[in-house]
Amino acid sequence: MTVPADRGARIAADLASADLDALVVTDLHDIRWLTGFTGSNAVAIVGPGDDGPVLRFLTDFRYVTQAAEQLPSAWERIDGGRDLAGAGVASHLPAGAKRVAFDDAHVTVAAHRRLLDAMPDGVELVSGGDQVRRARAVKDAEEVRRIRAAAELADAAFVEVVLEGPVVGRTEREVAVDLETAMRRLGASGASFDSIVASGAHGALPHASPRDVPIPAGVLLTVDWGAALDGYCSDCTRTIATGPVDGLEHEIYGIVLDAQRQALAAVQAGAGARDVDAVARELIAAAGHGDHFGHGLGHGVGLEVHEAPTLSPRGSGVLRAGEIVTVEPGIYLPGQLGVRIEDLAVVTEGGSDVLNTLDKELVTLD
Amino acid sequence: MTVPADRGARIAADLASADLDALVVTDLHDIRWLTGFTGSNAVAIVGPGDDGPVLRFLTDFRYVTQAAEQLPSAWERIDGGRDLAGAGVASHLPAGAKRVAFDDAHVTVAAHRRLLDAMPDGVELVSGGDQVRRARAVKDAEEVRRIRAAAELADAAFVEVVLEGPVVGRTEREVAVDLETAMRRLGASGASFDSIVASGAHGALPHASPRDVPIPAGVLLTVDWGAALDGYCSDCTRTIATGPVDGLEHEIYGIVLDAQRQALAAVQAGAGARDVDAVARELIAAAGHGDHFGHGLGHGVGLEVHEAPTLSPRGSGVLRAGEIVTVEPGIYLPGQLGVRIEDLAVVTEGGSDVLNTLDKELVTLD
Repeated sequence: MTVPADRGARIAADLASADLDALVVTDLHDIRWLTGFTGSNAVAIVGPGDDGPVLRFLTDFRYVTQAAEQLPSAWERIDGGRDLAGAGVASHLPAGAKRVAFDDAHVTVAAHRRLLDAMPDGVELVSGGDQVRRARAVKDAEEVRRIRAAAELADAAFVEVVLEGPVVGRTEREVAVDLETAMRRLGASGASFDSIVASGAHGALPHASPRDVPIPAGVLLTVDWGAALDGYCSDCTRTIATGPVDGLEHEIYGIVLDAQRQALAAVQAGAGARDVDAVARELIAAAGHGDHFGHGLGHGVGLEVHEAPTLSPRGSGVLRAGEIVTVEPGIYLPGQLGVRIEDLAVVTEGGSDVLNTLDKELVTLD
Repeated sequence: MTVPADRGARIAADLASADLDALVVTDLHDIRWLTGFTGSNAVAIVGPGDDGPVLRFLTDFRYVTQAAEQLPSAWERIDGGRDLAGAGVASHLPAGAKRVAFDDAHVTVAAHRRLLDAMPDGVELVSGGDQVRRARAVKDAEEVRRIRAAAELADAAFVEVVLEGPVVGRTEREVAVDLETAMRRLGASGASFDSIVASGAHGALPHASPRDVPIPAGVLLTVDWGAALDGYCSDCTRTIATGPVDGLEHEIYGIVLDAQRQALAAVQAGAGARDVDAVARELIAAAGHGDHFGHGLGHGVGLEVHEAPTLSPRGSGVLRAGEIVTVEPGIYLPGQLGVRIEDLAVVTEGGSDVLNTLDKELVTLD
């Protein structure tokens, strides 16, 4: 399926208003969003043009056939030779281009030097170039559909492998492998990131790797997993009890659940990225665990599992309708336990629409 | 298991000979090789020092415990705060450092600007900084052991899923999923890259994605797959026949096999990266297929599935003992068929040692 044909033209319009003659797009996720191309080597050049948008797509011989199948017809397809991001770009700039932007958050210092060396006289390379990244943070209906499908597929794998089990006595790694295998079997192209399956005190590491140790009964188990489907990612976390747990576990779970629900309720178009984070952070701090929630509240999800925007004390700007963000507060007590609860939600005008379907009350396995 | 404690000191010695006071290491594969750290956020600072090497490791609160478990004791571990690669680095440079190198093939233009802004007066940032990447291209005995284990595991999965089948009538995607599942079950942390399973004319795309179409009998099937195990990667390709095939298939297979064997025989310490490529390229060209082998002969494999060195017409330098490279010529006839055969070999003084174990004669499935 090709991407909507107007994406290139929308970026071209952004460039015109920034007084830029061209943008060199080098990030493959940006290129996929713009053009639908899924290969591993390409550069796109977008310009406002004098007679309508200039949309040029450079790849190498390996991908010529694939590009012909994947790109909307508005794109001019070019075999860009051995040095796509240097000589290739320099030879295919829009006629008369003077101010050419590049993505300084993606282009390395060495690549920038090669690009600079290849530029014709009189062309200025302009830092910035986040137009595509910003544009793709807002998802269209088809993208929401795909991410919802990925989230529902991931949910189904969780129900089968974790909730229906068995879990107790199997190793964290076995459960992680089974979860990924179930997602592939259900149609995912893979996991969208390395699954976290962390039991007991290991759950106090927010980025724990699954271990070759059996999961005991009567502890908290944090599972953070996602599916990749049709190029799009999902991301979800649930913490469950592998049998009856103590009062401390219930207490911490209750605080995190409350923080998660209140922060999620604060998500809506126009809400400040920092303010939404603060809802969860202040609630957790008021419960005496301010030092035990050290990461941001959430992040955008789309073609990448971590993308714009960022919900954290260092976030900036306001949420826009169509952005898809995680809401995932946690409390981590070193040597004791960890709890994190994460949903994936589309920002809407008056609130949000959660894409995953699993319950959030504490589940206790038999 | 911690990495050998002398790696930091070896890099420090390289820096001293290049008249550098420090190197800022930001690539996570470089950091893993240097320190054994497997987390997702860290910066290492290495300096020759006045009284022995300065080895500083900066991470954030999430990884403090993990770093204490993983790093050799020679490393000073520092909670580097919110801005590891800017203010964190600036505050922890070796005393009196003037010339500080960074990896310009990894640091983005925006990250470089932040680093520059944070630098104390009088400190010069020096482009280059590939000391770690070059050092880790040469593997030690433990690394060879790990990569061999990954290759043997991948071979076992191939035997089970492809050679013992069934393959005919199943889709390319099903076979790819089974291959990845088998690798996980056999202990891999995952596939080292997205598996290629390409039958018939689809095999003419060197980077084909597995399709949801059944694999027919009596065609060539190219499988390119690898395992990730203990952080290290393997990479192998085999082309088989899914039943009796025609003379053209046998002819092309024979040319590629001959090219692969002769190029592999040319691998040894001191051989030119370009010359080894030329052995296969000239043989294929002499057989009339020079235009049908459009990619390089091979690449290094280690913590990354593509790393230094590069065997291609644009390669440079000579192979060093301990480097591990793929040797993977191919012939691609658009609309008809593709053949690629790939082994993974350790460069030795007098030749090479192949790490995978599968036969290379054309296998025809029953």
